[in-house]
Amino acid sequence: MQGPSLSMREAASMYGTAVAIFFVILVAALQGSVPPKSPFPYHIPLDSKGVLKLSWNISYVQETIHFQLSVRDFRAGVLFGMSDRGELENADLVVLWTDGNRAYFADTWSDQKGQIHLDTQQDYQLLQAQETSDSLSLLFKRSFATCDPKDYLIEDDTVHLVYGILEEPVQSLEAINTSGLQTGLQLVQLLKTEVPTPAMPEDVQKMDLKAPEVTIPGEETTYWCHVIELSQSFSRHHIIMYEAIVTEGNEALVHHMEVFQCTAELDNPDFSGPCDSKMKPDRLNYCRHVLAAWALGAKPFYYPEEAGIAFGGPGFSRYLRLEIHYHNPLKIQGRQDSSGIRLYYTATLRRFDAGIMELGLVYTPVMAIPPRETAFVLTGYCTDKCTQLALPPHGIHIFASQLHTHLTGRKVVTVLARDGQERKIVNRDNHYSPHFQEIRMLKKIVSVHPGDVLITSCTYNTDDREVATVGGFGIHEEMCVNYVHYYPKTDLELCKSAVDPGFLQKYFHLVNRFNSEEVCTCPQASVPEQFTSVPWNSFSRETLKALYNYAPISMHCNKSSAVRFQGEWDLQPLPKIISTLKEPTPNCPAHRAPGPAGPTVVNIG
Amino acid sequence: MQGPSLSMREAASMYGTAVAIFFVILVAALQGSVPPKSPFPYHIPLDSKGVLKLSWNISYVQETIHFQLSVRDFRAGVLFGMSDRGELENADLVVLWTDGNRAYFADTWSDQKGQIHLDTQQDYQLLQAQETSDSLSLLFKRSFATCDPKDYLIEDDTVHLVYGILEEPVQSLEAINTSGLQTGLQLVQLLKTEVPTPAMPEDVQKMDLKAPEVTIPGEETTYWCHVIELSQSFSRHHIIMYEAIVTEGNEALVHHMEVFQCTAELDNPDFSGPCDSKMKPDRLNYCRHVLAAWALGAKPFYYPEEAGIAFGGPGFSRYLRLEIHYHNPLKIQGRQDSSGIRLYYTATLRRFDAGIMELGLVYTPVMAIPPRETAFVLTGYCTDKCTQLALPPHGIHIFASQLHTHLTGRKVVTVLARDGQERKIVNRDNHYSPHFQEIRMLKKIVSVHPGDVLITSCTYNTDDREVATVGGFGIHEEMCVNYVHYYPKTDLELCKSAVDPGFLQKYFHLVNRFNSEEVCTCPQASVPEQFTSVPWNSFSRETLKALYNYAPISMHCNKSSAVRFQGEWDLQPLPKIISTLKEPTPNCPAHRAPGPAGPTVVNIG
Repeated sequence: MQGPSLSMREAASMYGTAVAIFFVILVAALQGSVPPKSPFPYHIPLDSKGVLKLSWNISYVQETIHFQLSVRDFRAGVLFGMSDRGELENADLVVLWTDGNRAYFADTWSDQKGQIHLDTQQDYQLLQAQETSDSLSLLFKRSFATCDPKDYLIEDDTVHLVYGILEEPVQSLEAINTSGLQTGLQLVQLLKTEVPTPAMPEDVQKMDLKAPEVTIPGEETTYWCHVIELSQSFSRHHIIMYEAIVTEGNEALVHHMEVFQCTAELDNPDFSGPCDSKMKPDRLNYCRHVLAAWALGAKPFYYPEEAGIAFGGPGFSRYLRLEIHYHNPLKIQGRQDSSGIRLYYTATLRRFDAGIMELGLVYTPVMAIPPRETAFVLTGYCTDKCTQLALPPHGIHIFASQLHTHLTGRKVVTVLARDGQERKIVNRDNHYSPHFQEIRMLKKIVSVHPGDVLITSCTYNTDDREVATVGGFGIHEEMCVNYVHYYPKTDLELCKSAVDPGFLQKYFHLVNRFNSEEVCTCPQASVPEQFTSVPWNSFSRETLKALYNYAPISMHCNKSSAVRFQGEWDLQPLPKIISTLKEPTPNCPAHRAPGPAGPTVVNIG
Repeated sequence: MQGPSLSMREAASMYGTAVAIFFVILVAALQGSVPPKSPFPYHIPLDSKGVLKLSWNISYVQETIHFQLSVRDFRAGVLFGMSDRGELENADLVVLWTDGNRAYFADTWSDQKGQIHLDTQQDYQLLQAQETSDSLSLLFKRSFATCDPKDYLIEDDTVHLVYGILEEPVQSLEAINTSGLQTGLQLVQLLKTEVPTPAMPEDVQKMDLKAPEVTIPGEETTYWCHVIELSQSFSRHHIIMYEAIVTEGNEALVHHMEVFQCTAELDNPDFSGPCDSKMKPDRLNYCRHVLAAWALGAKPFYYPEEAGIAFGGPGFSRYLRLEIHYHNPLKIQGRQDSSGIRLYYTATLRRFDAGIMELGLVYTPVMAIPPRETAFVLTGYCTDKCTQLALPPHGIHIFASQLHTHLTGRKVVTVLARDGQERKIVNRDNHYSPHFQEIRMLKKIVSVHPGDVLITSCTYNTDDREVATVGGFGIHEEMCVNYVHYYPKTDLELCKSAVDPGFLQKYFHLVNRFNSEEVCTCPQASVPEQFTSVPWNSFSRETLKALYNYAPISMHCNKSSAVRFQGEWDLQPLPKIISTLKEPTPNCPAHRAPGPAGPTVVNIG
């Protein structure tokens, strides 16, 4: 997220007031547009100064989103839209611009050089442009899918919103030079899950987990750690809801927050400070069991009516770690913050305990990504043998999911397979960002039966790396995890896999046969060292893929990270999948609004 | 191509006349429709009885095709459209149907079960429905690209046209049961190359190469071979044009025809009979140098004004072999035929001799396709080293191309690369069929300079095969060839490659390490035998691909099939390609006709 350049703003200020007076209320192209059913339930600031604010609502029936974009101190124009990974190139954009006389609104796209072009189909429909003393507000709508190949397809997953601010009028759309603009991006899930809000019981209690009176450091990125201690007598409860409490004025700075439970045995000291501080006790590293997670734009998280997550009582650590990610690109100094998470819990236990299970890959270097790959896929399995053994006869019900990788992760998906056939997607993010890890409610609860297989695949981009990236805990190592939230809770905490290490050694041998350079296959070489010495060419890359798609796996079918279920878990066959899910063709809007073929003139005074 | 079922036709005949009287001339949806600039220049029968005939013209400016579909003895309805490989499932269809009262026209699509649904966008526009005494004629138009994901994208390559005949009225579109219809398919290049016709010189002469008075055998498939002898004194000429001469009434039976030149040394006897006849002299197998080729729907073939192909004179065999493919699915008996090819040639030699060069893969078993592959790609290279050595300083100009594989070929493409960058597509067919091998004029002449690389890739489907398919001459072996027609003629006749045989042996060794079954890597085993004993699993399949994409190649940079240019051609590196061509996004029609959202009622009497 890049902030505005102050010098440009000053230079252009003379245009600002001149252009602003042209705007009055305007209602355009009203055919078929139903007024938003409610004021907008979703809000997000786009930049860290709060100049641009987006609100929206969703009609799942009409497959349409209404957007309200508010621009503070509007001067000459604004660009707003979506792109694959937040670039202003190859983006789907609406542009409002002025040429000094008139203002125009248009559905446009940018090419790979960032040059803006008019869309042949105008799919963003402007409904209203309204000016108040200090801001301009635009109301427009768009279908999820437009079937214009230049448009972004809005799906359930993360959307990289992009924006740009025009400081000076331009003579035409084509005259906009995107490389000279103040631009930025914001990550959000646009298509939120809308489930009926379960009623709160009468005995519901609240607990605010806050880091009080933090002075936000004047640095772009701070992870703040704060330990909270429950009272010794705190008995067993169910958490049934939680939400963020963000200090007013800091909405654009508080990026995400997580509450972790510490391991039960641990006696943790008091701490409040940056997570990377040398003063931080090492023991805090054992507080990594996610209890609650919130990210910018996320709504309150409700557990299903029949379940809650255990909180307090025997076997539950009295210590919690609150972690807050402050994102402060403008390096604002001295801002005070007391944000945190508010838990809603009840002593009247619900029918089911909810649990969290880890799917995906074991944290081991045998799973590695070659350097300079743009879309390398690693896959972890939760096999039929493990679900058969560990799940209750009626199965479990997954209602939420949090996807997790380290820095090179770009996509994550978990698919459920039964009888060798892929049946449904548990959760998928084709625009996943490691900087935006929300717990997301699923649109539909997914039931997993004993004997089902859960396949979690992560796609990585190591284009900027010189050496192989191996699996592991380090921030420069990689993970592929889906934390699924489900009920009823079972003993199965981990259902993950990795390639059999013996077959990986066969791979290193094989690479040696084809190349003059030698990979040490001697016993003293560690796997990361072996990967570092692989000569990366198309053959070694493709055969590594082939190995991962063929070689037997070692399963972690575990009660906790150290305790396996009884059984043989090494040299297990890869699950056989005989039919895969097909990508559905998007629904084009049945009746395309006979909208304008070109830009709309937005009220000339 | 499947013919109509007679019993069904009889059963439904009572409906035919009743419904037919409802039709009169109708002009619908005329907004923006320009009348076809000329009567239709292109014609093709869709079925072998000539019940359905298609004519069309092309507007490259508007990117639109006008179709005229004529239906003889129209009864209750007709389906016409396009699909990936000629299935009636997953097809893009127009349907004209009657419910006993009214007739309707609609743009539809069929799902994977063949069930028909209305398109949300109606992109086929009916312009006219006209009835004569014995036939119904429909005039409709469509854009090349519609941007409706259910529609077929019409491109330069082969199109699998599909049709179905409704014998009885149906109550609705959804009530049509495609599995019970008379259906069939026809292959055609819809987007023909339209170049200005070069003027014929005054001294132009004609020669008809015909197989006179052939009685077409009553079998579905016959390849008829006929030897033609030129007079001893026939001197050097240039062929500058040729066209098909098809005996009237046999238009639907004569599928394709080729004229081959025999090798110059050969003294060939007279022969006229089926090519697989035991009576056919073996020597005819040496007549395989293509001189002219025509397939159903192809137009006359004109050489560029500055070039012609050498015909007669010293070094030119006096013997030609005409091969005619009769396609007779109804097994009609006793039909007489005298079809053939008419050559137009001149003694006034043009500036350049045209030549034909073979690009792609060497005919060798080292290039193989595993069984049960749906889209396996093999690639042959014409390297910079070969073009540097063999092409004239100003390069050559490719004006036409004929793609060639055996039975499992599904796609063929040749790409030109310069300085490691893919620059342009020489010819591509993403819907290639081995049953439809035309010589096609290129839309734009492609110039190849010394140092350029030509990369020819073929995609194969071996889904119905139990063992590996190796490269070779046999019909059950495979080829990957692009015969490019170019000028000025050079000595370079073959520019093809195959994987280095030593690296293939490394592959067989490697497969042995990963599997319990053994591939014999002993010297006495032949390559086809070795491929037959490979245990085909995802690892051996993927590593074979990786081998072909990595291992050095052996080049055939040859003057004729046996004579190489001087140089080292074994263990050559694969050409390095640092940037590939991007698939262009199709242009959606700028102004979509505000057409009907549902079926059009076609005149109710």
